[in-house]
Amino acid sequence: MKIRMNRLCNIDGRIKPENDATIPVLDRGFLFGDSVCEVVRTHRGRLLQLDAHIARLKASAARVLIDVPITDEKLQQRIEETVELAGNDETYVRLIVTRGVSSAPVIDPDYTLSAPSVIVIVRPMLERPQTVMSCGSSAWLVDVRRNHPDALDPAIKSGNYLNNILALNEARKHNADVALLLNSAGCLTEAATANVFLVQEGKLRTPSLAAGIVAGITRRVVAQRAQAEGYTVEEADLTAEDARSADEIFLTCTTQSIAPITRLDGELVGSGRPGLVTLRIAERYEAWCDELVGWAGAPALN
Amino acid sequence: MKIRMNRLCNIDGRIKPENDATIPVLDRGFLFGDSVCEVVRTHRGRLLQLDAHIARLKASAARVLIDVPITDEKLQQRIEETVELAGNDETYVRLIVTRGVSSAPVIDPDYTLSAPSVIVIVRPMLERPQTVMSCGSSAWLVDVRRNHPDALDPAIKSGNYLNNILALNEARKHNADVALLLNSAGCLTEAATANVFLVQEGKLRTPSLAAGIVAGITRRVVAQRAQAEGYTVEEADLTAEDARSADEIFLTCTTQSIAPITRLDGELVGSGRPGLVTLRIAERYEAWCDELVGWAGAPALN
Repeated sequence: MKIRMNRLCNIDGRIKPENDATIPVLDRGFLFGDSVCEVVRTHRGRLLQLDAHIARLKASAARVLIDVPITDEKLQQRIEETVELAGNDETYVRLIVTRGVSSAPVIDPDYTLSAPSVIVIVRPMLERPQTVMSCGSSAWLVDVRRNHPDALDPAIKSGNYLNNILALNEARKHNADVALLLNSAGCLTEAATANVFLVQEGKLRTPSLAAGIVAGITRRVVAQRAQAEGYTVEEADLTAEDARSADEIFLTCTTQSIAPITRLDGELVGSGRPGLVTLRIAERYEAWCDELVGWAGAPALN
Repeated sequence: MKIRMNRLCNIDGRIKPENDATIPVLDRGFLFGDSVCEVVRTHRGRLLQLDAHIARLKASAARVLIDVPITDEKLQQRIEETVELAGNDETYVRLIVTRGVSSAPVIDPDYTLSAPSVIVIVRPMLERPQTVMSCGSSAWLVDVRRNHPDALDPAIKSGNYLNNILALNEARKHNADVALLLNSAGCLTEAATANVFLVQEGKLRTPSLAAGIVAGITRRVVAQRAQAEGYTVEEADLTAEDARSADEIFLTCTTQSIAPITRLDGELVGSGRPGLVTLRIAERYEAWCDELVGWAGAPALN
């Protein structure tokens, strides 16, 4: 039964097997996507950048006026307790905070009956298929535009993923694995659940937060550490043409770390193989994570 | 215990008291707002425009590639059965179809394990406070813009309501009851959960579907029937200035029918009382509903 216990869900402090974990039908997260979320993972068995994820969760919640009903310390403790009980080698954690249960199915937050609900989903972290790194993935610049920051800022990680799902559905119609979204001004933003970097003449270039993107935590680690190691890293207004003419493209996200994109709109990116800069960043990223979790066996950084 | 039985929830054909109705934590409606919805009500105890609501539900589902796993007839039967069992005088019904339960918390629909889930929430229809009709409500033209149709078309009634909730939160900061949203081009769209009509020199004017709005069923009844009775009804690109200078403003929606707006951005609309055209339309709307449900006691229409 070990396999089932690896999947636990902690709802407001009560831990259950994931398959038994349920949400009231009048939870506003279910009715209206009125929730915020984060995805955290372990590296070497330790939670990676948990402080940054909790800070971003609270920033998302503040933007939508949800009061996270628990201190950072208690939340961290609750996550660690659930992770430990699940006992996976490497762990995936999804944090969700919903505004709570409503007394009626109306969007007005004044109808909320309960305190916000805190959900921690804990699962084994699945290894990426080898092909993601060795062959790269295919991407499509979709017609679906990223939510506009004036309507629903993509920087808010919320339970409203339909924009992203529509984008992914469109990419799939073109047999691509990944959707890349432009904003309403035609500038590159991000993939459906990852940030994007272009490599152009050896430089790393990535859309600025002003383009309307998630302020990715992996994105920030890569930008800051790569710059510290001598790479030129620019935040810029990037176009579809920049992406199509890039030497290399890679995505960054918590679950996939560094993921090369080797085809775009059906054409090869560069040589059609993961590029040298991408591979080097991916290698360095593992070392940066070692350092971030304070892994004793970490090799000295450069 | 009658009062509790008035609130029922039918989940995939199984009817439960609403308080016992739960959703798996891995339901995509909960995780991602990956669901579509409708609100239906009874008039004179009969479901009002149910065919139109089911048609719009299916149109929303088609737009996001969710296959509604039940025929229109079966869905109608399921709704009627639940409504009857609840036994309310007048009934509120919320229909929700989610893409189903996911094998993992990832947005990719390919991970969906189950058929889409069909949820029918049945409650007593609450009477509107008298003041809504006699005094009207206050509205605010908020800075939050309506979702752009290229990102997430407001015509899709989905579980993604955070744009609307942000708008409502902003209106509340100004002590207003209702948020009116502009689109990215600055044109009037709709309220957070209702369509909007302006009365200008006796004409009814309402944003066109192209502005990025829900194709409201009450909106359509009002536009068609009012026109048939001699009103001039125009779909137009309306501005904030049009709203601020309108003689009358009213909202249309399933639950509120015709709802006068008597203050906008803190200023009186017209005389600051529900206007004559609004009151006449509200009166006629009740007669149109009588006719729509085939109420035998319906007075002859004009």
